[in-house]
Amino acid sequence: MKIQDVGTPALVVEASGLAHNLDAMAAALPGSRCRPHVKAHKTTALAREQEARGHRNFTCATPREMEGMARAGLGTDLLLANEVVDPDRLRQLAALDARVTVAVDSTATIEAAAAAGIREVLVDVDVGMFRCGCRPDDAGRVADAAREHGLEVRGVMGYEGHVMSEKDRETRARLTEEAMQLLLRAHGDVGGDVVSGGGTCTFDINTWATEIQAGTYALLDTEYAYPDLPFRAALSLEATVIAVSDGWAVADCGLKSLALDHGNPTVVGGTVWYCSDEHTTFSPDRPIRVGDRVRVLPAHIDPTVAKHERMHIVDGDTVVDTWEVDLRGW
Amino acid sequence: MKIQDVGTPALVVEASGLAHNLDAMAAALPGSRCRPHVKAHKTTALAREQEARGHRNFTCATPREMEGMARAGLGTDLLLANEVVDPDRLRQLAALDARVTVAVDSTATIEAAAAAGIREVLVDVDVGMFRCGCRPDDAGRVADAAREHGLEVRGVMGYEGHVMSEKDRETRARLTEEAMQLLLRAHGDVGGDVVSGGGTCTFDINTWATEIQAGTYALLDTEYAYPDLPFRAALSLEATVIAVSDGWAVADCGLKSLALDHGNPTVVGGTVWYCSDEHTTFSPDRPIRVGDRVRVLPAHIDPTVAKHERMHIVDGDTVVDTWEVDLRGW
Repeated sequence: MKIQDVGTPALVVEASGLAHNLDAMAAALPGSRCRPHVKAHKTTALAREQEARGHRNFTCATPREMEGMARAGLGTDLLLANEVVDPDRLRQLAALDARVTVAVDSTATIEAAAAAGIREVLVDVDVGMFRCGCRPDDAGRVADAAREHGLEVRGVMGYEGHVMSEKDRETRARLTEEAMQLLLRAHGDVGGDVVSGGGTCTFDINTWATEIQAGTYALLDTEYAYPDLPFRAALSLEATVIAVSDGWAVADCGLKSLALDHGNPTVVGGTVWYCSDEHTTFSPDRPIRVGDRVRVLPAHIDPTVAKHERMHIVDGDTVVDTWEVDLRGW
Repeated sequence: MKIQDVGTPALVVEASGLAHNLDAMAAALPGSRCRPHVKAHKTTALAREQEARGHRNFTCATPREMEGMARAGLGTDLLLANEVVDPDRLRQLAALDARVTVAVDSTATIEAAAAAGIREVLVDVDVGMFRCGCRPDDAGRVADAAREHGLEVRGVMGYEGHVMSEKDRETRARLTEEAMQLLLRAHGDVGGDVVSGGGTCTFDINTWATEIQAGTYALLDTEYAYPDLPFRAALSLEATVIAVSDGWAVADCGLKSLALDHGNPTVVGGTVWYCSDEHTTFSPDRPIRVGDRVRVLPAHIDPTVAKHERMHIVDGDTVVDTWEVDLRGW
């Protein structure tokens, strides 16, 4: 099948770009040095490609991602890098045929995890992002409380997410070191083998974490396409031109198929004017006709992928595989 | 069941607010004067409530919405207010057990519709939105071409979407009149009984259209909650507080469950700092604890609802019904 025969809007993954990105990461951070984050692609078939390159430990953001990974036989070592206090969801996680570790950062999250039968945890530390995680100075006390509740404390995690948007590598490196000094101080009080952190934009800067939770690198978006990173944009949307007017055209993809939280998408061969629910209005660089196909690059892949039921893997124009985005939802 | 027992993040619809909004519209624009747009809620159970109040004609934005409405027995008169040139999708629409009308605005869309066996069309006219629709001066020629291809031309449609964001009613009224003068001029050249246009924010201003394509009014978002409109915000997200720090807290809803294209959501009893994929960081107005529930109002309901599998209808704390969001996708 050709990509031109697939109904639009459709997620398209360039097989060569994906392989390049996965290979680059596996070479730089082999095996357990990278714990790929599945929230970025929500697709067990893609996680299997990461596993085939040696990464057996994965990071998840939602219980449903954990459950789907375990069901797909990818449950060697799953980290829920997020706080959950829902007793039902935690019990479901504890019952999985998988090694399950969850993040805790407070008495409430510890009590909920222990009551549900969760066995292993990481202490989540806020390293400057103003989100979840205890203060570095409290990490030792959180670890003590977890152990008192019978939980095995494997170490710490802290995500320097506030650093990712720094385009200047030197600044990014300085801020990463500051964040990781906080995490290492916490680790000194907590103990355990694991110091989990990092992401796509700090994968080769963050030398303090024992494992890097990178997700975006596999498919990449325009937001994180920094010149100092060895990854390529491998994901786009295939869209159809449905209207052409004097000076602008309209493609059949809009904000229901593209996430706008990191800004407008990029139309290859055109300039985006605006997106509405089902449409992207743009000025094309050259004459275009109704029925023509255009490629659109999302600014943020994670929530874009989450809007789609499947992604088509292409080699040139040929669809070589179609993967279900089977970890959607929460 | 109580709403506190539902896993989060969850869509919550206040039954009384929804009934108020549906009643207000049915009183102002009874029967076919309103052609509710299902893109705003993507839920046949909600469309059935609109039908019960006398609206039997509906507007859709995607083929899948058309198919789902027909399958649910809501196919009395379905308008696809959008351009489609995919022959397979158009053939599927033509084969539905429903009255199907589609928008056309060019030779290509006319040829595609006629070839697929579509019988009825509206001529879509651009009334100032820089999106789909022919120029008003071309509408007569588009109608002639459609009739030459054997299509029944029922009239015109033109959506004054660029007017909706005008908070000042007088300005909104002036711009609506300007847009509708363009549409009426086109209608003079096209003929037919239907002049379709309008939306929630112009439902009682647009007196030129024969039918109003309002969708948002049923659930309402913070963006369209203008004081001159008789509708109430009836949709929110129920979320759980998963972390509390010095000065901020984190709820378990983020940009994968809330659309940010119209701006940040509003946390009832707090001030939003920012949203990330799975989290909303906010400063609470009063002390809050991990495990507490908070209500979050989305700025834009259409793409927010599209992220969810179901919506819970509540009377106070009691869940009186749960509706599947069964028209998702395209």
